[in-house]
Amino acid sequence: MTPELVAAVEAQSDFAAEVFDRLRAASVDVRGVTRASYGEGEQAAHALMAEIAGGLGLEITQDAAANTYMTWPGRDRSKPIKMVGSHLDSVPQGGNFDGAAGVVSGLTAIRALQALGHAPAQDIAVMGVRAEESCWFGVSYIGSRSALGVLPDGALEDARRMDDGVALAEHMAKCGGDPDRVREGPPHLDVARIAAFLEPHIEQGPVLVEEGFPAGIVTGIRGNRRFPNARCYGEYAHCGGAPRRVRQDAVVAATEFVQAMDRLWDKAEAAGEDFACTIGKFQTDPERHAMTVISGEVAFTLDMRSVDPDVLRRLEARVPEIAAEIGARRDVRFELGAMTRAAPGRMDPRLVETYRKAAAAVGVRAMDIPSGASHDSAAFADAGAPTAMLFIRNEHGSHNPDEAMEIPDFIAATKLLAAALAAPA
Amino acid sequence: MTPELVAAVEAQSDFAAEVFDRLRAASVDVRGVTRASYGEGEQAAHALMAEIAGGLGLEITQDAAANTYMTWPGRDRSKPIKMVGSHLDSVPQGGNFDGAAGVVSGLTAIRALQALGHAPAQDIAVMGVRAEESCWFGVSYIGSRSALGVLPDGALEDARRMDDGVALAEHMAKCGGDPDRVREGPPHLDVARIAAFLEPHIEQGPVLVEEGFPAGIVTGIRGNRRFPNARCYGEYAHCGGAPRRVRQDAVVAATEFVQAMDRLWDKAEAAGEDFACTIGKFQTDPERHAMTVISGEVAFTLDMRSVDPDVLRRLEARVPEIAAEIGARRDVRFELGAMTRAAPGRMDPRLVETYRKAAAAVGVRAMDIPSGASHDSAAFADAGAPTAMLFIRNEHGSHNPDEAMEIPDFIAATKLLAAALAAPA
Repeated sequence: MTPELVAAVEAQSDFAAEVFDRLRAASVDVRGVTRASYGEGEQAAHALMAEIAGGLGLEITQDAAANTYMTWPGRDRSKPIKMVGSHLDSVPQGGNFDGAAGVVSGLTAIRALQALGHAPAQDIAVMGVRAEESCWFGVSYIGSRSALGVLPDGALEDARRMDDGVALAEHMAKCGGDPDRVREGPPHLDVARIAAFLEPHIEQGPVLVEEGFPAGIVTGIRGNRRFPNARCYGEYAHCGGAPRRVRQDAVVAATEFVQAMDRLWDKAEAAGEDFACTIGKFQTDPERHAMTVISGEVAFTLDMRSVDPDVLRRLEARVPEIAAEIGARRDVRFELGAMTRAAPGRMDPRLVETYRKAAAAVGVRAMDIPSGASHDSAAFADAGAPTAMLFIRNEHGSHNPDEAMEIPDFIAATKLLAAALAAPA
Repeated sequence: MTPELVAAVEAQSDFAAEVFDRLRAASVDVRGVTRASYGEGEQAAHALMAEIAGGLGLEITQDAAANTYMTWPGRDRSKPIKMVGSHLDSVPQGGNFDGAAGVVSGLTAIRALQALGHAPAQDIAVMGVRAEESCWFGVSYIGSRSALGVLPDGALEDARRMDDGVALAEHMAKCGGDPDRVREGPPHLDVARIAAFLEPHIEQGPVLVEEGFPAGIVTGIRGNRRFPNARCYGEYAHCGGAPRRVRQDAVVAATEFVQAMDRLWDKAEAAGEDFACTIGKFQTDPERHAMTVISGEVAFTLDMRSVDPDVLRRLEARVPEIAAEIGARRDVRFELGAMTRAAPGRMDPRLVETYRKAAAAVGVRAMDIPSGASHDSAAFADAGAPTAMLFIRNEHGSHNPDEAMEIPDFIAATKLLAAALAAPA
């Protein structure tokens, strides 16, 4: 049925474009769109998706975290289900496609399969996920992890939205959720009943644009080790008086540390290992620094990512060693502070293979690509659900109003999704 | 007359200690002392020194910048004069000795020579210099340069004191100065009439303490090249999405630049050249930086010093080359911004030799030492006056209330000064 499927998905171009237009109109801001987690724009997006799904005859339900499920009943409703999910919130003044494209792709694929008269073997549920963007509550994957029963303890009460300071529980309740049930009830989703969690998402980097591929098949989602509050302490001293041998210069030591991280990256690259390292913040103390004063303190952040858990484990041991070595040699003290860990999101090899075969069958050029950024898929993979992601080509990155996904690329990726949904599970 | 001179200077210990105590009492602050340039504490210090000099029978005058001259008339008043000078201001909540020790040493040496019945061949003038600490007006050597007729254009009107925002000219007038005469009149000091400018000063670094010498003979005052407002521009990007090859990471590039400066220092050290380099400020943009965002901007300062004008000239060419090389390789742009220059202060070889011989003759252990910090002597040397400096051992650095010069070390240095004042010019 491959040529028919290709044609059926292509026939949905206008439908998809119109959904995106309506979505933009429902959440437009001064610049771009704003769909705050458990806020007005996200609420409008869930309502719009439910309305469109209703038009396709899907069953609409919400769980205690107010995630929306739009389900196309299968011939055997007892079988483990196929899910298509992505988030419907956005960063403040973000783009229209980050997150939402996955939900629209799910509905578009179902509409194409319906047009072909396809009757799914098992339920296919499109999940509009709540609150993925951690900028709002400082907690990631709120919707996914609530559905899976793994929201961190205390998050409902302690996490407050950055724009209004109101607690997550209160926002959730306002949007029709039931925070008590999230806290105490059994998880809404039973991982054993999920045959696949499939998340199409725009690419947030430039790789597909540069390499000339409309779509990417994600090979893994990078986990991370983060030091959000690292410091290097030296000793303030007038730079004219202090000879080199007595200097305890935090800037010279901490910049050497950054360069050592960059060299670790060189080595990982040479060994063919996946790795990325970012020092996003680096600053001397604005209260005390001066041009002619040797700096006694530098504050910095360190974010290290890899799809490979072994690489992350090795770094976790190596980084403090490097800091200690530089500290001893330069007579300064590194205090790396608390470290946070996020496990890499493992993609299901069978699902990845399904996508690869579909790409060949339907004639969509798709390249293998690791995901540097975090996604709801990481929460599902971590919970043990067979998970796979597709990236859709998108210019100008994400988290900004200039996101530029084009409908033909969206349609190309949706062909792969439709093929995976039609394939025997 | 050497043994007599040694004994005569040693006999001044109580006198010197009392002068320092009175000086501290006249300018005490919540912590340490505060003698703001053209402020209350400095004014009190000038009045106190004039009172003490009057007791020694010296002639007291002030110039248009309100510098105080305390002159012991020589047998031949037409001969070029010997000067002993240092500043009487301090940083806010600074120590009692930084600056003032030089003036007290001059008066102490004169008191000792008077006790010996010495009749100076030419005038010996102790100069209480105004406004050396650039923290107050952002301009260095205000008193010295006013006296020499080389105060930068506009400084009288444009420089405002950091604590009250009042212009230099107004402050100068309030302290008995005549800013119009500073601006338009002939310089008060004629360099051709200066046989020597001698400045004793506490050491601001730890070298004499560490090496165990009570005094140091300064071999040169470091000049500098400064970039007070350098920047490195990259491109902000989400660190998850951007692969390494497209990153334009300002932090990685600017930290490499710092390390390259440190390597230049290694080379200079290996070649036996005098050099020091300080990056006192280094910061990502607090408005835009984030742990998971590749930084698009770093602001930093660069201060490079050497006693050797050739080293400074070479660096002036080399630094922009290094920035350009790293910029090209890392796909970022360095804008080093305006550079300021200060010429090294050359010490007069004859005067340095006089000090060395005196040290041997009077039995004071004195080591050769370059001055990393700036001093009024640099202004006098730059104007062409034969100049020499002595450092006095002092624990805990300067510009803080914990300065800890001890009277025996002060007396040791004053022996060298007295010997130089008694020597034929």
